[in-house]
Amino acid sequence: MTTVAHDAEHAALPAPGKLAEYRTERDLLGAVEIPADTLWGVHTFRALQNFPISGTPIGSFGALVNALVTVKRAAARANHALGYLDTKRAQAIEDACSAILSDRRYHSHFVVDAMQGGAGTSSNMNTNEVIANVALKILGEAPGTYAVLHPNDHVNMAQSTNDVYPTALRLGLMQAVKPLLEALKALAEAFAERADIFGQILKVGRTQLRDAVPMTLGQEFRAFQHTIENEISSLDNSLSMFLQVNLGGTAIGTGLNTDTRYRDAVIAELRVLTGQKIESVPDLIEATSDVGAFVSFSGHLKRLALKLSKISSDLRLLSSGPRAGLGEITLPAVQAGSSIMPGKVNPVIPEAVNQVAYLVAGYDTTVTLCADGGQLQLNPFEPMIGYCLYSSLTILHSAVNVLASRCVSGISANIVQCQYLSERSIGLVTALVPVLGYDTCSAIARRALTENRTVKELVHAEGLLPDDQLEALLRPEALTRPNL
Amino acid sequence: MTTVAHDAEHAALPAPGKLAEYRTERDLLGAVEIPADTLWGVHTFRALQNFPISGTPIGSFGALVNALVTVKRAAARANHALGYLDTKRAQAIEDACSAILSDRRYHSHFVVDAMQGGAGTSSNMNTNEVIANVALKILGEAPGTYAVLHPNDHVNMAQSTNDVYPTALRLGLMQAVKPLLEALKALAEAFAERADIFGQILKVGRTQLRDAVPMTLGQEFRAFQHTIENEISSLDNSLSMFLQVNLGGTAIGTGLNTDTRYRDAVIAELRVLTGQKIESVPDLIEATSDVGAFVSFSGHLKRLALKLSKISSDLRLLSSGPRAGLGEITLPAVQAGSSIMPGKVNPVIPEAVNQVAYLVAGYDTTVTLCADGGQLQLNPFEPMIGYCLYSSLTILHSAVNVLASRCVSGISANIVQCQYLSERSIGLVTALVPVLGYDTCSAIARRALTENRTVKELVHAEGLLPDDQLEALLRPEALTRPNL
Amino acid sequence: MTTVAHDAEHAALPAPGKLAEYRTERDLLGAVEIPADTLWGVHTFRALQNFPISGTPIGSFGALVNALVTVKRAAARANHALGYLDTKRAQAIEDACSAILSDRRYHSHFVVDAMQGGAGTSSNMNTNEVIANVALKILGEAPGTYAVLHPNDHVNMAQSTNDVYPTALRLGLMQAVKPLLEALKALAEAFAERADIFGQILKVGRTQLRDAVPMTLGQEFRAFQHTIENEISSLDNSLSMFLQVNLGGTAIGTGLNTDTRYRDAVIAELRVLTGQKIESVPDLIEATSDVGAFVSFSGHLKRLALKLSKISSDLRLLSSGPRAGLGEITLPAVQAGSSIMPGKVNPVIPEAVNQVAYLVAGYDTTVTLCADGGQLQLNPFEPMIGYCLYSSLTILHSAVNVLASRCVSGISANIVQCQYLSERSIGLVTALVPVLGYDTCSAIARRALTENRTVKELVHAEGLLPDDQLEALLRPEALTRPNL
Amino acid sequence: MTTVAHDAEHAALPAPGKLAEYRTERDLLGAVEIPADTLWGVHTFRALQNFPISGTPIGSFGALVNALVTVKRAAARANHALGYLDTKRAQAIEDACSAILSDRRYHSHFVVDAMQGGAGTSSNMNTNEVIANVALKILGEAPGTYAVLHPNDHVNMAQSTNDVYPTALRLGLMQAVKPLLEALKALAEAFAERADIFGQILKVGRTQLRDAVPMTLGQEFRAFQHTIENEISSLDNSLSMFLQVNLGGTAIGTGLNTDTRYRDAVIAELRVLTGQKIESVPDLIEATSDVGAFVSFSGHLKRLALKLSKISSDLRLLSSGPRAGLGEITLPAVQAGSSIMPGKVNPVIPEAVNQVAYLVAGYDTTVTLCADGGQLQLNPFEPMIGYCLYSSLTILHSAVNVLASRCVSGISANIVQCQYLSERSIGLVTALVPVLGYDTCSAIARRALTENRTVKELVHAEGLLPDDQLEALLRPEALTRPNL
Repeated sequence: MTTVAHDAEHAALPAPGKLAEYRTERDLLGAVEIPADTLWGVHTFRALQNFPISGTPIGSFGALVNALVTVKRAAARANHALGYLDTKRAQAIEDACSAILSDRRYHSHFVVDAMQGGAGTSSNMNTNEVIANVALKILGEAPGTYAVLHPNDHVNMAQSTNDVYPTALRLGLMQAVKPLLEALKALAEAFAERADIFGQILKVGRTQLRDAVPMTLGQEFRAFQHTIENEISSLDNSLSMFLQVNLGGTAIGTGLNTDTRYRDAVIAELRVLTGQKIESVPDLIEATSDVGAFVSFSGHLKRLALKLSKISSDLRLLSSGPRAGLGEITLPAVQAGSSIMPGKVNPVIPEAVNQVAYLVAGYDTTVTLCADGGQLQLNPFEPMIGYCLYSSLTILHSAVNVLASRCVSGISANIVQCQYLSERSIGLVTALVPVLGYDTCSAIARRALTENRTVKELVHAEGLLPDDQLEALLRPEALTRPNL
Repeated sequence: MTTVAHDAEHAALPAPGKLAEYRTERDLLGAVEIPADTLWGVHTFRALQNFPISGTPIGSFGALVNALVTVKRAAARANHALGYLDTKRAQAIEDACSAILSDRRYHSHFVVDAMQGGAGTSSNMNTNEVIANVALKILGEAPGTYAVLHPNDHVNMAQSTNDVYPTALRLGLMQAVKPLLEALKALAEAFAERADIFGQILKVGRTQLRDAVPMTLGQEFRAFQHTIENEISSLDNSLSMFLQVNLGGTAIGTGLNTDTRYRDAVIAELRVLTGQKIESVPDLIEATSDVGAFVSFSGHLKRLALKLSKISSDLRLLSSGPRAGLGEITLPAVQAGSSIMPGKVNPVIPEAVNQVAYLVAGYDTTVTLCADGGQLQLNPFEPMIGYCLYSSLTILHSAVNVLASRCVSGISANIVQCQYLSERSIGLVTALVPVLGYDTCSAIARRALTENRTVKELVHAEGLLPDDQLEALLRPEALTRPNL
Repeated sequence: MTTVAHDAEHAALPAPGKLAEYRTERDLLGAVEIPADTLWGVHTFRALQNFPISGTPIGSFGALVNALVTVKRAAARANHALGYLDTKRAQAIEDACSAILSDRRYHSHFVVDAMQGGAGTSSNMNTNEVIANVALKILGEAPGTYAVLHPNDHVNMAQSTNDVYPTALRLGLMQAVKPLLEALKALAEAFAERADIFGQILKVGRTQLRDAVPMTLGQEFRAFQHTIENEISSLDNSLSMFLQVNLGGTAIGTGLNTDTRYRDAVIAELRVLTGQKIESVPDLIEATSDVGAFVSFSGHLKRLALKLSKISSDLRLLSSGPRAGLGEITLPAVQAGSSIMPGKVNPVIPEAVNQVAYLVAGYDTTVTLCADGGQLQLNPFEPMIGYCLYSSLTILHSAVNVLASRCVSGISANIVQCQYLSERSIGLVTALVPVLGYDTCSAIARRALTENRTVKELVHAEGLLPDDQLEALLRPEALTRPNL
Repeated sequence: MTTVAHDAEHAALPAPGKLAEYRTERDLLGAVEIPADTLWGVHTFRALQNFPISGTPIGSFGALVNALVTVKRAAARANHALGYLDTKRAQAIEDACSAILSDRRYHSHFVVDAMQGGAGTSSNMNTNEVIANVALKILGEAPGTYAVLHPNDHVNMAQSTNDVYPTALRLGLMQAVKPLLEALKALAEAFAERADIFGQILKVGRTQLRDAVPMTLGQEFRAFQHTIENEISSLDNSLSMFLQVNLGGTAIGTGLNTDTRYRDAVIAELRVLTGQKIESVPDLIEATSDVGAFVSFSGHLKRLALKLSKISSDLRLLSSGPRAGLGEITLPAVQAGSSIMPGKVNPVIPEAVNQVAYLVAGYDTTVTLCADGGQLQLNPFEPMIGYCLYSSLTILHSAVNVLASRCVSGISANIVQCQYLSERSIGLVTALVPVLGYDTCSAIARRALTENRTVKELVHAEGLLPDDQLEALLRPEALTRPNL
């Protein structure tokens, strides 16, 4: 979603005024002219022509790019160790991967559109070409000198898009989720802080938008904290799904054209490079076409999104007013709300979060349709699955950040309003049921409503209970926990 | 969704204790024994074995059954007129169709599951068999005497499931929508009545759950009336999509094995039988696999559902409280709301409507997936599309009915609360902007909020405007319409 | 979805001809007349009037009914142990629950519509009333003699719908999933059996619907087996989410009006009654409004549905033809496919499974909308969430059953076709790349396609490889696994 | 989705190295420093801080920006005509709007994030500020000299975000759909051309992936043409929904603070400026919160998307192979399909179209959730609705373009394969039913399948029909249309 960094060295096309030189590359469709310094090649060129769809290059998803490069690096190491790739080329690939992984500016060369046909082939090809050309430069060769080091024969050795791409999607998601988890922790902490501050403020609990029984504002915010903490664990645990990868399966999972030792070797390298307990799937053929883990992960993100949406809706409701709403809390003012209504301030941050949540839920529908479209030995729609999942992570991360920093951390309680509503609430009568019985309490409730009086007033006026017992029953500590 | 009527004559299986007699029927899989009086035959028998899925028989969707029978009747008339079907058989089919259409108990013989594979073949076969056997009885023959009148050769003559079923789905929907339209009219009238009654009650308008500028409660309910009226027109207009049918296309739209005059003849009969301006599609091949009209209709139902959901949410919000909510209106109490909280009454009718709306939106997702599954010359998933659309109509009809009769028509206004919130609202200051300017008004708004005073008090106290001008500016008539 | 069993003793209304006697019950709306023998009471009566929506009574979801009854039983035991409920009443409730749990005919008394407003209150009330009246009969009292044993005061003691209903939804789902898990095991076994039988049949693997590299038909079916086995574990594991329940929280999670020892006591009873490791949630307030576990479970069911759909689509594709399709396998014929095309047989079982999967995905959208509608201390839309989840389990169970028993177990392989396509496939050339190189292989591929020859023919004709080496490279064992 | 054009004059921030000068602007939160030449002001500044969500500025949606500017222009004209805005300011606003509308580079100043809270206020404010500052420059004043011409008091005069933004969303969509309609026309023409070329090629029609009866490849492509043409009309007709706008309603639809003549005046100006038959809605209050037209439009786009997806899936299926699939057509090769399988070419363009369609369907889910979130007098989630609809138009336009130009227009038929499959197909027997009867034909079908012979062979061998009659019955002209 974000635009990748650019500078002169990392411009995809020659700077204006500079005399461009070109090199020729070929594929099965013929020859194409590419600016001589360009780090991508003919396959990327074709993809640029074929997929001018979204304008969002895969380089926008930095974690995915790094994961693709990491897979290539692991493969180069394994191929070298097994004797299929010579030391010079292996080292050049290693160095190229290292360079790309340590400098985000290289992401600007990952230019194929995130919305692409071909099951990820163009993303894989773009990666092969950039690594090859960076490696060639390291070797002192001009980009395109593929006789020395070839994108397919060497960088892609023993690989197919069909094992590389699903593996990289997984590794990348494990990375891309990290900033979101950090933001969620900050959000949970912001709620915890509010819960501490609001701990003694008695207020009305509401079910079905109707006054129910009392609670504290602290309990309400503690619940927000806990529900976010649950999501953090749940999301974190879900990542273990991604530890099983199908690398080594090549085209359809049979591992055709790989050395029998390759699968174990490349997985071992991946473990080293990622520090994660990566392992091979039990059935490579099943795994090649399976997108179950992505469907599950999308479900996890949707669940998180729905919780954020529920919390945002609650914050908007609790802060409604300021005069003709619930008005129990005040959200920090972050911008003027209206050009026509002086002094109006709107809950714009929670509104943004609601909308982000709805987009994540929409992406889940897209993932569903993509998953249903898998056929036989492959699901060709993984690029769109990737687009949805990485985009979801990006916008959830942003939304959680602003929710914590620009809204929750500045919420104040309107103590007078909480107390006023709480004392007037008829739900208080529930606390008297164990003493007065359900029927008497029903009658009090009805009268309180009809005569516009408080429960306390009425019970006192009727002399139904001694004042001290009444006070005791209606103490906040008694009202907000088990009490018999 | 509803269980069809049963009685002795229309029981699908022999009554307990009665000695069952059986007849033998055959298909390409072999022979089966069927209770002798059963009106359905071997193809229905197979479908019952193959699709024990939902437990909802197609007979539950009476409008669909009647539409299938009407298509058969039109075909029999056309085949007779063109000389392919003799008078005796044509008349027997005619009479059988007439009998079924005039007695809902026959729906109990339409037993195949609404969730079925086979693109509707089983629904078509069930229809052929019931009509044939009813016709045979009319002819004095025993059920199963297909040599005299055959389900396929005669009842299904010049037809294929692939033109009969999509045609019947359309005709049936045009019928099934009628009770919903009637219910919506009653709902619009209920809102209109409330709008009349509430016409002079000034209240706060709210945007983004924040106090905005004044309006009347009548205006709020008038908007509900108008939005429902819009849906009535929109839904009614949408039905014209269903007037174009693919009958006559047979298996794939080429009209193979039909007389060149058949297509026009059968459409003409359908016009007579339905009283609708049915016409043939321009491209029968395109139409055979196309489900665009169903996707559109599902979209229309979803839009209606979302409006009902928005209204229901508004009613719940406006009636929230009774003490610690907005409390501007009171919904009629229709049941006790809580076993633990005496006197609590919940907005259960609007809550039911929200949920029905969400199911309709879910069905739209199902229709989307089914539509995407069309392949080449047919979409095999039309039975599920039908299930979703007919179910949506049923539950929307029920929900609108209860919303009008058990909720809206009994809503009362809490005039004191409306007035109280309205006078306290800071949004009133907006009406003074043309006179006092935006900056002065902003300052008043801020002070009103900080000092917990009303705008009117402050303007009076500050002597910013003569009292009579202030009164004039804050008259309800001035506040709730263009006023310069 | 299915109609519950009925007989004379369990008829909800007096039999025709029998002189009905009535009893009077009252609630806050007034008095109602109910047939004297009816096991439900006034609250159920109101709900029947308020929610004539879907025609599907909650009694259709037997596992949910049993779970509600089990919660009541646990509460009665806990209340008795803590001294709040006397032994006579406790025993009567115990016996009533036991009777209902052991005789499915009682489900016919759980009559409130599955689509209901009120957050489950009507389901809870219906349960309280049936248990109370069964208990009264056990005590020799007439139904409705609530002075002796009261639906709310005794059966519902220390409970609120808001803790009972979410707890019962969870317990019921753990039960309702069991038949589905059994059916999935049978399906996995059916695939395993086919995989064994098809183990040596070489065929073309396909990616993106294009001929890729060879595999065996056994490998293809083994992948189906494994993917279903993955779903079994995944679904089974997911059930642990439901072990944490909010029973004891009463109205909003504060546990108001409960004994401080009650929460632990009732959970302990639930453990005994269910044999499951039920435990209390850490934050009862958070849990009262949270529907995250249902959203997750819906996601699990959708993932399973999508796998079944993918498999079904594959089966339809692999069996396409019989002449002008892939035709590698033949599905068992289960019904005639066409009234107009003699001999046509369609893949109706997989088509039914696809459609069921799409409905499950639609229900997931509904669950999403319901989850988003939670407000403050409760989500009022849990009844629809329950409807979607229990319906999904029912139809998935049916669909998996027919898929295993009426389709997969009877699939046969078309060995000649598999071999024919496999030998003609150009993808075979991939196996020669390690020997002949990518460029030479590309040229062979191109020639094979242009000249309509096989790869083997061409390599032989060109003398590119000795025949024995060529044979060795193209042996099935070499083609379908890592081979270097 | 696309990045807007940038150059020195239109850079949002001072160029590196240039000494930045700043101006001070204020809002209710205080003062901010803004680079002196910046065309946006304090409200945009706040929004940039509040909504760092998607990285996609509203300037990416040029049609929306232009529509916002057009609304402002119409308002300025109306305000001038009614005497509320002096000639100098009115002319300056007029000229500023004209400048922005005629130079796309101004879009780079519309910088607020497309995903924003606040119901579009930030988009409206950004527009007010840019117009004001461009107008100030025209007047020879420095940006920020709002005493001369004020973003709110003058540019936003008689307007509220709540009538401006929904109006602009509508006007913008009417524009943004035009390139899509053009692309669809080109696609329909591409199919028409193929249909002409393929008119005489006999092939097997398929229903439920099973061989059905014959058709021509021309008929198949003609159906694609017609279904796209239907979508063009349908989409074009749907635009009339957007002609009714709520401009003049201001904050909640009551038209508070507008002149009674304003509503008609501003609509009249809009008609002149757009050349469209814009009219005012009947109920401004209803219209202010209503998003029904957007829900409908989203439904239209989804329907179109599903048709494109179905066509794409068909193209992939018909071109499957090249050896072990249907192989009836060949899609143009546009890129190499595999790094591991020499010569493999994949249907990457249709695959991209499928994925785009699935994203559009996902956006429809998002629109559904947003629509459900409307409350009382406003729907705060219109910015996300706008994001989804404009994004859908962008990607559909791109996808249709590449489908027409890089795929459909280059499709070739594999005549030999079509003929081969067609002659072998058993479905041919259907054409003999009127002569030989259903039973005889069934027997022939069965034998043909079992003995692996053609229908023609068998009928000839059995002497069931004279050869000339057999030939006549199996002529393509007889097989592909009504023939009795």
